[in-house]
Amino acid sequence: MVQPTHVDEHGAARMVDVTDKAITTRKAVAEGRISLSADALQAVREQAVKKGDVLATARLAGIQAAKRASDLIPLCHPIPITGVDVQITVSDDPAEVIVRGSVTTSWRTGVEMEALTVVSAALLTVYDMLKAIDRGMVIGGVRLLEKSGGRSGEWTATP
Amino acid sequence: MVQPTHVDEHGAARMVDVTDKAITTRKAVAEGRISLSADALQAVREQAVKKGDVLATARLAGIQAAKRASDLIPLCHPIPITGVDVQITVSDDPAEVIVRGSVTTSWRTGVEMEALTVVSAALLTVYDMLKAIDRGMVIGGVRLLEKSGGRSGEWTATP
Amino acid sequence: MVQPTHVDEHGAARMVDVTDKAITTRKAVAEGRISLSADALQAVREQAVKKGDVLATARLAGIQAAKRASDLIPLCHPIPITGVDVQITVSDDPAEVIVRGSVTTSWRTGVEMEALTVVSAALLTVYDMLKAIDRGMVIGGVRLLEKSGGRSGEWTATP
Amino acid sequence: MVQPTHVDEHGAARMVDVTDKAITTRKAVAEGRISLSADALQAVREQAVKKGDVLATARLAGIQAAKRASDLIPLCHPIPITGVDVQITVSDDPAEVIVRGSVTTSWRTGVEMEALTVVSAALLTVYDMLKAIDRGMVIGGVRLLEKSGGRSGEWTATP
Amino acid sequence: MVQPTHVDEHGAARMVDVTDKAITTRKAVAEGRISLSADALQAVREQAVKKGDVLATARLAGIQAAKRASDLIPLCHPIPITGVDVQITVSDDPAEVIVRGSVTTSWRTGVEMEALTVVSAALLTVYDMLKAIDRGMVIGGVRLLEKSGGRSGEWTATP
Amino acid sequence: MVQPTHVDEHGAARMVDVTDKAITTRKAVAEGRISLSADALQAVREQAVKKGDVLATARLAGIQAAKRASDLIPLCHPIPITGVDVQITVSDDPAEVIVRGSVTTSWRTGVEMEALTVVSAALLTVYDMLKAIDRGMVIGGVRLLEKSGGRSGEWTATP
Repeated sequence: MVQPTHVDEHGAARMVDVTDKAITTRKAVAEGRISLSADALQAVREQAVKKGDVLATARLAGIQAAKRASDLIPLCHPIPITGVDVQITVSDDPAEVIVRGSVTTSWRTGVEMEALTVVSAALLTVYDMLKAIDRGMVIGGVRLLEKSGGRSGEWTATP
Repeated sequence: MVQPTHVDEHGAARMVDVTDKAITTRKAVAEGRISLSADALQAVREQAVKKGDVLATARLAGIQAAKRASDLIPLCHPIPITGVDVQITVSDDPAEVIVRGSVTTSWRTGVEMEALTVVSAALLTVYDMLKAIDRGMVIGGVRLLEKSGGRSGEWTATP
Repeated sequence: MVQPTHVDEHGAARMVDVTDKAITTRKAVAEGRISLSADALQAVREQAVKKGDVLATARLAGIQAAKRASDLIPLCHPIPITGVDVQITVSDDPAEVIVRGSVTTSWRTGVEMEALTVVSAALLTVYDMLKAIDRGMVIGGVRLLEKSGGRSGEWTATP
Repeated sequence: MVQPTHVDEHGAARMVDVTDKAITTRKAVAEGRISLSADALQAVREQAVKKGDVLATARLAGIQAAKRASDLIPLCHPIPITGVDVQITVSDDPAEVIVRGSVTTSWRTGVEMEALTVVSAALLTVYDMLKAIDRGMVIGGVRLLEKSGGRSGEWTATP
Repeated sequence: MVQPTHVDEHGAARMVDVTDKAITTRKAVAEGRISLSADALQAVREQAVKKGDVLATARLAGIQAAKRASDLIPLCHPIPITGVDVQITVSDDPAEVIVRGSVTTSWRTGVEMEALTVVSAALLTVYDMLKAIDRGMVIGGVRLLEKSGGRSGEWTATP
Repeated sequence: MVQPTHVDEHGAARMVDVTDKAITTRKAVAEGRISLSADALQAVREQAVKKGDVLATARLAGIQAAKRASDLIPLCHPIPITGVDVQITVSDDPAEVIVRGSVTTSWRTGVEMEALTVVSAALLTVYDMLKAIDRGMVIGGVRLLEKSGGRSGEWTATP
């Protein structure tokens, strides 16, 4: 039977002990998207033309959130991350903003949660900046695309 | 033309001044879900039978995240929230965990971002706790269900 | 039968909704102590003679912790506290450092947890600063002395 | 004469330089307890029977606090901890909740403060969750039980 | 004789009790600058032409820091700020970046520290982003320009 | 042409990837000052005579801020710092408080931003503690004095 690693034999939560895991280069890439109304899409587009601050704010929110993943997620280890990259693209049809975040470290455990947190924070920030125009935006497709490093090695999402 | 409220006339980000908005009771409810493999679903179910710590951890992550929304989202106002409720349900078909978060305050601006942050943090925590079983889980359908209070009044998502 | 207020009817944790409670002046006073070896006591005393930084550091730790109680304690409301006072005294017989913390606010819920957090953080800081001299120090007697304000009114610890 | 390590020769606080200390596996275990009234004890017991959220919340508060020890304690180094375990037991006679926290890392300085912070945060959380039933609870016996690793090696509390 | 308000009669630090001060609209404006080499100035200018992210990042750092002033400054009250505006200008002769930050609230105490923190964080961020080009940049002229609201009323810096 | 390292080829902010940089001992020293009125200077002096808490508070604010540099500065890496030292001196003519902060680590990237953050936080704290006496204080001369370690090696400010 499957046994979640964050829960001990009596069902009590714990932070898994990774003290003895090897320090290796680890990377994770995650992705997500937010659907927009035509008005919200237009606002993002025109910002992009002018000074780009909607997307710049979301990008920075994502980078900063990578540093706070272990604050947000109770059993997540604090990880001294060594790189964060956030790519944001705007799609017209369907109308959506797509965020891809990648995080790297050289540490004892992986950065999947950091990459997913980057994407979630960036998408929440897009929502925040556009909510006066469109409250009906929906965040979806938030998932891990790939990870590498560590004992479990490479993993890639099925397309 | 539409004009995002978080950006001034030159495109520079700012925190919107809400000093003169009335203090009223405000509430927001948001929802989201994470799709699970059969193995992950089983693990959640068996936890629920034993001590329920997977869902209890997600619930607490959501509650605590409500207090950190303005840390995560750059232009979000700090809000002295006065109540948070998180409902988590497990669905078998489709196999998913569904989180509904509601946040209340009596303040000058709404708590939509807090409610969406509750949901995002709880879903990320579910991912974290089950990722050793299933890395392919996908978070989606994160959206505002309803809000009340403030100048813009009631808003309900279209079903 | 008794029913803890932080748990709903199904046993799930929640942040109790205080939106409708009145804004009144609320105050709480808490106390605690740490027992010291003779060497540790002497070090504190000599610091007090020179520049007092051991106690000054503990006092500041207490004040700052008052602002983070809702970060540390999952279901604690964020409260805009309006005053913190920390009194630290050193006793020779028994050899101990005694911390008394009081916190005030004008808000919808009380500051008992803030006062207890002040005391705990100050005592942990005393331990930290003296642990190279004495690892056997014990923190005890951490309790609420009195509270006032709010619906439940005055409360004073039995001596 | 004894000289506290956190204070320089003029009495000014500093964060001790551990740059040249070896990276070794370090562990610390701490303990503490909170005395309860019969009503509070009963509430904890019945929760344990139903869904256990009082203790689950305290356990999570402890785990998360381990990550924030250096925020709470001014001269404490930030430490990338690699494991946290929290054991909570309920005693009937005397009526109390007992928390034992252990923290591990592979780093240049020890995790005694992290272990003591785990215990303090968990006990404060028990107080918070039961304070509507019993404001007279007292936290005590918070102390280091053992530590290992680093230059000073093993240390065990005298019974 | 003058007596600093943050220190009690025995010289011990405290958070001044503002519970009884009136809730009024309060505003503070602060300013500061960082001197640049010609190369650093050129880099800022060209960014401004391309996407402006150096200044956008500094602006966001300032806005977010306004929310953390009470984390950084030990005796500063937590304040639910209601607006932040950051203006950044680039001067060619002398070569410098000038930051002006204004913060508003409706609360019991002023936001001077918040405005000064906005400016400091934005200037530190400019340094961070350009330090690979010029490590000799100097931050200066960080001062309050004006404040209004509260018992002490209006205050304007002498030119 | 110069190219800021924190900005990718399209002008979008990123956290520079330092995963492959060597772990070496790195140190940075920064300095800054705040000008005071005669009254404020006298208050600092008399505190120094009594219990020194104004300077003790500023020193602790500096030490704690070193741990939060990556929270304040968006693209700054989280760094497990291993030592912080803050020296504060009071000058009569000109009347000013001078802060020097040094930070050390053994990590993949330097601690210049941490040292500058120490100085900024300590100076803001001096302002905060004396602002009731003198609102016209000005913070200036905040700059890096020297850094060592890492690929770029030694750097010393021109006098």
